[in-house]
Amino acid sequence: MKKSVRFVAGTALALVFVTVATAQAPAPRPDRAIKYRQGVMGAQGWNMGPMAAMVKGERPYDKDVFLRNATRVEQLLAMSWEAFPPGTDTGAPTKAKPEIWKEPAKFKQYQDETMAAAAKLVAAARVGTLDAVKGPFGDLGKSCNICHDDFQSK
Amino acid sequence: MKKSVRFVAGTALALVFVTVATAQAPAPRPDRAIKYRQGVMGAQGWNMGPMAAMVKGERPYDKDVFLRNATRVEQLLAMSWEAFPPGTDTGAPTKAKPEIWKEPAKFKQYQDETMAAAAKLVAAARVGTLDAVKGPFGDLGKSCNICHDDFQSK
Repeated sequence: MKKSVRFVAGTALALVFVTVATAQAPAPRPDRAIKYRQGVMGAQGWNMGPMAAMVKGERPYDKDVFLRNATRVEQLLAMSWEAFPPGTDTGAPTKAKPEIWKEPAKFKQYQDETMAAAAKLVAAARVGTLDAVKGPFGDLGKSCNICHDDFQSK
Repeated sequence: MKKSVRFVAGTALALVFVTVATAQAPAPRPDRAIKYRQGVMGAQGWNMGPMAAMVKGERPYDKDVFLRNATRVEQLLAMSWEAFPPGTDTGAPTKAKPEIWKEPAKFKQYQDETMAAAAKLVAAARVGTLDAVKGPFGDLGKSCNICHDDFQSK
């Protein structure tokens, strides 16, 4: 009897924890998470475009546009990472490789490096010269590419 | 002769202006602008979801999550508006109504009202209580709906 009471109490407590955990952070539907991260990363690309054109000399350097876009990329990057919970390797067409969930420490390291590179680009953009942003822009691009090479299907 | 020189000079000047304008702000490909704004607005919805659940009592109020999501919605809203240049009523499947480009003053007014509502929500979220955010969250939702009612196809 004592054992069964304990079991029931334990089960009830476990259910409470499960319920609370679910209420606090319900797992997103995989298709929604995939669509969200694709939207956010697409928006990163949209904002990278004008900066790339300026760095390549295809468009005149505009410090206000550059700073705005660098800031937006940093904001969007910060939004990306929560959209890769386990179970979202499938559910909608996605280029995310299973390695994301097999090597979480590496994925997290890439996130940290990319966020640091974005912060450096924003700081450089505040300087307001093309010379200041060229290096940091290239570094951010490299961070993006390193992560895509390892964790995104072609 | 004088007339034709003027014509040539005028044309050359016009070409210079066109080239400069294009270099400074090249028109985005309509399909890219449409995809970008859909991604950004989808991300707004993703971030509204947890706030709505808290306001409805479906999920415990978490002031940090609420403030983070309110801030992200404000950031994403600021990114949306540039993605409605003329000519992007077509080019990819879109629910954007032609009225967006027929009534630009009204569209701009809705943008300003939505941005103001988002700023108020972020300020309320900094207070850190559910009571503080309920009204401003409802107001932001109304701003979204008013604009969608007039400018987004069902």
